[in-house]
Amino acid sequence: MHDASAILLQLFTVFVAAQIGAEIAQRLRLPGVVGEIAAGAAIGPAALGWVHPGEALDVLAEIGVVLLLFSVGLETRLEDLKRVGRSAFLVGVLGVIVPFVLGTLWAHSAGFPWHKSLFVAAAFVATSAGITARVLQELGALQRTESRVILGAAVIDDILAMLLLGVVVALQGGEQLRLGPLLVVLGEAVAFIGVIGWLGTRVMRRRSDWLDKPINPLSPLSIVLAMCLGLAFLSTRFGLAAIIGAFLAGMIASESGQRHQLEQQTRPLLALLTPFFFVITGTKVDVSVFASPAALSMLAIVTGIALISKLAGGFLGALALGRRGALIVGVGMVPRGEVGVVIASLGLSAGVFSDQTYAVIVAMSLLTAMVTPPVLALLLRRPTDEGVAG
Amino acid sequence: MHDASAILLQLFTVFVAAQIGAEIAQRLRLPGVVGEIAAGAAIGPAALGWVHPGEALDVLAEIGVVLLLFSVGLETRLEDLKRVGRSAFLVGVLGVIVPFVLGTLWAHSAGFPWHKSLFVAAAFVATSAGITARVLQELGALQRTESRVILGAAVIDDILAMLLLGVVVALQGGEQLRLGPLLVVLGEAVAFIGVIGWLGTRVMRRRSDWLDKPINPLSPLSIVLAMCLGLAFLSTRFGLAAIIGAFLAGMIASESGQRHQLEQQTRPLLALLTPFFFVITGTKVDVSVFASPAALSMLAIVTGIALISKLAGGFLGALALGRRGALIVGVGMVPRGEVGVVIASLGLSAGVFSDQTYAVIVAMSLLTAMVTPPVLALLLRRPTDEGVAG
Repeated sequence: MHDASAILLQLFTVFVAAQIGAEIAQRLRLPGVVGEIAAGAAIGPAALGWVHPGEALDVLAEIGVVLLLFSVGLETRLEDLKRVGRSAFLVGVLGVIVPFVLGTLWAHSAGFPWHKSLFVAAAFVATSAGITARVLQELGALQRTESRVILGAAVIDDILAMLLLGVVVALQGGEQLRLGPLLVVLGEAVAFIGVIGWLGTRVMRRRSDWLDKPINPLSPLSIVLAMCLGLAFLSTRFGLAAIIGAFLAGMIASESGQRHQLEQQTRPLLALLTPFFFVITGTKVDVSVFASPAALSMLAIVTGIALISKLAGGFLGALALGRRGALIVGVGMVPRGEVGVVIASLGLSAGVFSDQTYAVIVAMSLLTAMVTPPVLALLLRRPTDEGVAG
Repeated sequence: MHDASAILLQLFTVFVAAQIGAEIAQRLRLPGVVGEIAAGAAIGPAALGWVHPGEALDVLAEIGVVLLLFSVGLETRLEDLKRVGRSAFLVGVLGVIVPFVLGTLWAHSAGFPWHKSLFVAAAFVATSAGITARVLQELGALQRTESRVILGAAVIDDILAMLLLGVVVALQGGEQLRLGPLLVVLGEAVAFIGVIGWLGTRVMRRRSDWLDKPINPLSPLSIVLAMCLGLAFLSTRFGLAAIIGAFLAGMIASESGQRHQLEQQTRPLLALLTPFFFVITGTKVDVSVFASPAALSMLAIVTGIALISKLAGGFLGALALGRRGALIVGVGMVPRGEVGVVIASLGLSAGVFSDQTYAVIVAMSLLTAMVTPPVLALLLRRPTDEGVAG
């Protein structure tokens, strides 16, 4: 029972920090998620040092973000996503190409050889859907066209980022790039999403009564949670982020007759678990970056490129929504969050990045995550005056 | 994202195994918890080997049982506990003394020297409230007098077991036993429970409106969950089990005006997390014990003594409830579950137990946990024909 004491203290500290952070942020009219990430930075190893994330906290964080995207999926119908398919596709593709090209050019000009530049640029690419999804949910904006475009684009973004990372990692080893296997990976991922999404929603629409068959009175919830964990796992097997599978699971569950009950029951799960995700994300901030002027100026440039390139890609892709809508979509695609952190870790362990480059890319990922929510909230709170065509 | 894949598969496996196990058990008219433990034994390292509990799963299990006892506390009023105080106290005390004395005598007769016999006997003592609480909750029996006696006795049992373990561990080192420090430990534990329970419920009864003050619409839940984690941690600091603090937190929250809403919101949390506790408990079963005839006969004797001694202690303590009520209480106190496992681990790492003794004690703990639920369910389902006086 000795370890239990230490871990309970960590859980308590993280959870309370999240509540305090979110409350302060909301009183300042900022999204709560900003306060949770800031609270994480404050109690993390780089500042107060009260919390040192280990396996257990990381797993809780992962469950938290998986449940968050599941609940976002619960509020999303496949039909609605299809309607914005073209815009979502364009946003996804341009939102990957523009940051990747600009990132490569900057990295090369900063002295990296070409193959390393591509790796650096890969860290510019992948949008972290968790942060934007949370802001959209907090503001009750998930039913807006822009939100659907963002969510659809996030799925496409994740597929492309996965492919790109595969290519870039292969190039580091000096391997010959072969198109065949790449196309297979792409095909598998698209097929996974397509088949699960299409078949799952169809089956659920017709036969959701079996969710009530088991004796357990909460069985609809238990079954869809099992599906959520299962699809989250499967999507990692196809090289995608776990949250893509969780989002699909939520979207399938949203076709069931028990949809509203499930939405109701998911809320307490989010209240307990999502704070772990955002606080733990915050704890990964390494303030040492801000100590060296060289690193700081590199951080400013990198963050600037990351912001502008993603914003531009998203904006251009979503122009069909009008300029204001396109701006919302562009801003919504900006956060890199934990995805950037993961790619930076890969680069560090592969020996491609120095410690400083690693720290800068992690800081950039988290800065984009911190900057987005207030801007997005501001844009969404003001009444829209332009069209909402898909 | 690579580790995420492995851990998601473990989460999925544990969760689905729990659902299937519980469903099969309930179709056989057994409590669901039996199926969850059996499912754990089936998928654990000793059998199929699909799941190997590590830190992350252990923490999820801990959160699961903490939330379970929190929810049991939510359905328990301090007033009701007070009313059965005398019976609960007697059950707690006799339920510790009888198993400890019989356990010591058996261990000595089996060849252990006296100081080691006391350690073995300590593993006979501590009741695991989780399993009984789950059965009582499943059957909707938490409002019965017997249930209140069991819950009150579990708190007293935990205090005494903690003291006893402290004494026994000290004796292994050949230390002189000093009464002063022991009384301080006892005093602190009693004071912790008394002050938190008394003050907490009083404050909550008068001022539960502040739970709605924060902006977060789910803040009553978030605040009481923070209290639950905090008190669970604090109770480990006083040498008590985490679930005692969680139970207190639930009891305090049950005095709030938001009580029904909190009960509602806790259910999805239990649906997600308690299966981890019971399945992980099941994975600790080591079937190797059943391979050696010597170990098997030792297991039979140890389990027999553990069952009868606890039953007798509980029965004698609760005679004021009539014979049937006393029987229910006695049976409800039988499970050792994870507490026996923890003490056995202590004994193993302290070099007091051999591997075989360790395996036997773990198996005994889990057998008592498996045997209790069906018997308890049988006793509770038949209509009571005797009095319910406290």
